[in-house]
Amino acid sequence: MFRFPSVLLSRRLHRRELSSSTTSHPPSLPLSHPIYLIWGSNTGVGKTLVSAGIAAAFLLSSPTPSQFHYLKPLQTGFPSDSDSRFVFNKLRQLSLIRNPHIPLSASHRVINVSPAVTASNPLAGEEGVGPPPELLCKTLYAWEEAVSPHLAAEREGLVVKDSAVLETLGECLEDVAECGAGKERSEVLCVVETAGGVASPGPSGSLQCDLYRPFRIPAVLVGDGRLGGISGTISAYESLKLRGYDVVAVVFEDHGLLNEGPLMSYMRNKVPVLVLPPIPKDPLNDLMEWFESSHYIFSNLKEIMLSAYFERIKKLHDMPREARDIIWWPFTQHKLVPDGGVTVIDSRCGENFSIFKVQKTEVIAPQFDACASWWTQGPDAIMQTELAREMGYAAARFGHVMFPENVHEPALNCAELLLQGVGKGWASRTYFSDNGSTAIEIALKMAFRKFSVDHGLIVHCHEDTTNERSTELMVLALQRSYHGDTLGAMEAQAPSSYTGFLQQPWF
Amino acid sequence: MFRFPSVLLSRRLHRRELSSSTTSHPPSLPLSHPIYLIWGSNTGVGKTLVSAGIAAAFLLSSPTPSQFHYLKPLQTGFPSDSDSRFVFNKLRQLSLIRNPHIPLSASHRVINVSPAVTASNPLAGEEGVGPPPELLCKTLYAWEEAVSPHLAAEREGLVVKDSAVLETLGECLEDVAECGAGKERSEVLCVVETAGGVASPGPSGSLQCDLYRPFRIPAVLVGDGRLGGISGTISAYESLKLRGYDVVAVVFEDHGLLNEGPLMSYMRNKVPVLVLPPIPKDPLNDLMEWFESSHYIFSNLKEIMLSAYFERIKKLHDMPREARDIIWWPFTQHKLVPDGGVTVIDSRCGENFSIFKVQKTEVIAPQFDACASWWTQGPDAIMQTELAREMGYAAARFGHVMFPENVHEPALNCAELLLQGVGKGWASRTYFSDNGSTAIEIALKMAFRKFSVDHGLIVHCHEDTTNERSTELMVLALQRSYHGDTLGAMEAQAPSSYTGFLQQPWF
Repeated sequence: MFRFPSVLLSRRLHRRELSSSTTSHPPSLPLSHPIYLIWGSNTGVGKTLVSAGIAAAFLLSSPTPSQFHYLKPLQTGFPSDSDSRFVFNKLRQLSLIRNPHIPLSASHRVINVSPAVTASNPLAGEEGVGPPPELLCKTLYAWEEAVSPHLAAEREGLVVKDSAVLETLGECLEDVAECGAGKERSEVLCVVETAGGVASPGPSGSLQCDLYRPFRIPAVLVGDGRLGGISGTISAYESLKLRGYDVVAVVFEDHGLLNEGPLMSYMRNKVPVLVLPPIPKDPLNDLMEWFESSHYIFSNLKEIMLSAYFERIKKLHDMPREARDIIWWPFTQHKLVPDGGVTVIDSRCGENFSIFKVQKTEVIAPQFDACASWWTQGPDAIMQTELAREMGYAAARFGHVMFPENVHEPALNCAELLLQGVGKGWASRTYFSDNGSTAIEIALKMAFRKFSVDHGLIVHCHEDTTNERSTELMVLALQRSYHGDTLGAMEAQAPSSYTGFLQQPWF
Repeated sequence: MFRFPSVLLSRRLHRRELSSSTTSHPPSLPLSHPIYLIWGSNTGVGKTLVSAGIAAAFLLSSPTPSQFHYLKPLQTGFPSDSDSRFVFNKLRQLSLIRNPHIPLSASHRVINVSPAVTASNPLAGEEGVGPPPELLCKTLYAWEEAVSPHLAAEREGLVVKDSAVLETLGECLEDVAECGAGKERSEVLCVVETAGGVASPGPSGSLQCDLYRPFRIPAVLVGDGRLGGISGTISAYESLKLRGYDVVAVVFEDHGLLNEGPLMSYMRNKVPVLVLPPIPKDPLNDLMEWFESSHYIFSNLKEIMLSAYFERIKKLHDMPREARDIIWWPFTQHKLVPDGGVTVIDSRCGENFSIFKVQKTEVIAPQFDACASWWTQGPDAIMQTELAREMGYAAARFGHVMFPENVHEPALNCAELLLQGVGKGWASRTYFSDNGSTAIEIALKMAFRKFSVDHGLIVHCHEDTTNERSTELMVLALQRSYHGDTLGAMEAQAPSSYTGFLQQPWF
């Protein structure tokens, strides 16, 4: 009665290290249909149940033919543990109960397995024939030992670079777009389920929250309803935010501790918090009743995910026009910006921006920051996260501090570093300013003051501000130089169309 | 043979809500001896074992008479659970084994208990007589139910405000200073053990990592060696950093998963990571062997805590002189700053700075930011944490982005808010600048440009930068006004000693 066209395991050649593509560019993220990352505040909090619940809410009560993609990039404990097989099996069971007369077509693939798995794995399968599957479950990399992927990878000889994980995931996400090519935006949904907690290492040792950053996939956080779970959920949420992820919902299993209260208060209604009924502890329970009783929550969650997706798409489309309407860009003649010339920057990771592009389809695509942001180069991906953490720390520890006659450690450490570095051998003090133009003005004023003292101008006319003495004072400047846009800084360069009368007729 | 002068439970009058002091000022933190907060990345990771281990390393192998204070501000599950009693008992046992001929004098107090505890609690005691205790264990607030303090507080009728917790803790910390008055800095050590995870709520519902912020006590983080523990430990660490805490060490129980590798790699050698041997699972085990086998790790941890303390004290003392030597403060005539006039700002929480003061003793004392940082008021304590998180998020998501012809959500949202708020009714566009002085210069240039266009100056002399036409151009300015320190902004105010020839002889 049911058609399950394929349960298949494809084995790729294993090298000690799977090569990445020749380019270090991460792949593009298709936006034709909603894609979400499912994160857990800890291991064992029920990420896979949540994925299955979303799949059921999406597939089994939809009036139109829908398609759900479940991707598990990193699976350890395989084959006895297989989250994608679990989702595949549960959806089969649920489909049988809910829609006994409409068969669910589904497929299940495992793409790369470690040699340890290959040696003992009983699973095998072929691509089936039949109708296009509505549920497509894939495991991208699988290891046998039930430990963190970085340990399993090392021990079992399937070491995978971050770029290879991203590339394989990128290919799967393109498959999602291709499979759903003829369908409406709301008829295809893809979830990518991470392994362990948000900061659990991937196979290279990189934390998963760092590993997946280039894609900028919005997130659902599966929290922890147990004792201590408020803390773990909030901390996991903060680790995601500290890497620039948008979390659209927090969902967790109820353990009777009312964890939702403090979580909702922490979120200040900015992120919805959903509570699932307690999960039966009996391993023999098939969870069918639990899924039925959770149906309303998962429908709710699915709606939140869809509407956040539509909001995001709308925003990405609207932003260029809105920016033109209400923003004045620096160094820009607005009339000369062509239609379609506004770049929508969705995020940055290392030297790449993630920008919104509408070509054949809509994508979030990497774009190298070749202009190095005009004046400075962005830090590499790891350093960017470290900087974000240090900025958060400094803001939390000091906030706004007035500086005169005060001292605090970051300022003092920075001064010391500057004097030992760029100022070595000539500078004995530091003066902090807010931007380059202001710094140039400060340097000019210092020079003027020194000049005045050296030429005895100060001693003789102390506080005589009305005495219009004429003094020969010149500032040497390079041709075609640029030192900033304040009037003084603009004067301190050779005459050009930016320094003449028309630009600053006052001086 | 042993003298345990006091095991005592003092019961204070319970009101529905314990009042805070009349002032909202948090108490001062004495610096005469090292004090640390012990945080856990989760509940049940062994914070109390770590506290006891540090106590043992500190008390039982010291050649000089030492004093250890253990404070447990919030205890639930009391009296069957009592972390301070556990520390008290274990140290008794360990002392018996290690120094059988030198009795350890110790005391144990419980200060406030909920009515539920009072009704059924078998514990009672009297102040004993004997030598001054070397180990002083205190529980500050205790509730009966083994749930989060905010729930227990609500259910059992001992609701405590944050200010009351801080006040009681402050009193206990003053006791630490008083008890140790005659002793060397390194002869007294105090640890304050938090409840649950870093972001577990206190009795008012405030997260503990927020609750204790005004004191700025350095931290030891007890991590999680289990599966998923890398993630939980890193996230907890990030939640602490996002509130401005300094973490001097991470320590966790070994579960054979080599969690220390990724943690050390994440810490980049900036924070030491220590691994404790596996803790016996048998509840009847008295842990004596475990403490013996952990002794080396705890001695190491104790040394890290002491040396971080001494470094901090040295830095606090040195900073004013160093700042005078290498920093130029804005708006400051350095000669007029009196000796002792440099304020050392250790942190900020809400409207209070935490500053270093040397009076009778050295303290970190709250000081109201009455000058509101000269130009702006700092946000309240909760908003400061939120801002820190949002800054971290923006830095992680975007880092450095060039702006011309680009758009991203935060800039656009900010522009919209400005136009709906301060710009409502008159502004149709926003232009972002880096500081107030530069903004004034931009406004001047815009005005000049408009003036030039209105008076036909541009059409006729396009690109003629050498034509020295004379045009009547005046900028109206208020007397005694101040708009910034760049040369153009300084000119745009009525003549004063800051705008005359001596200040900027160039114009």
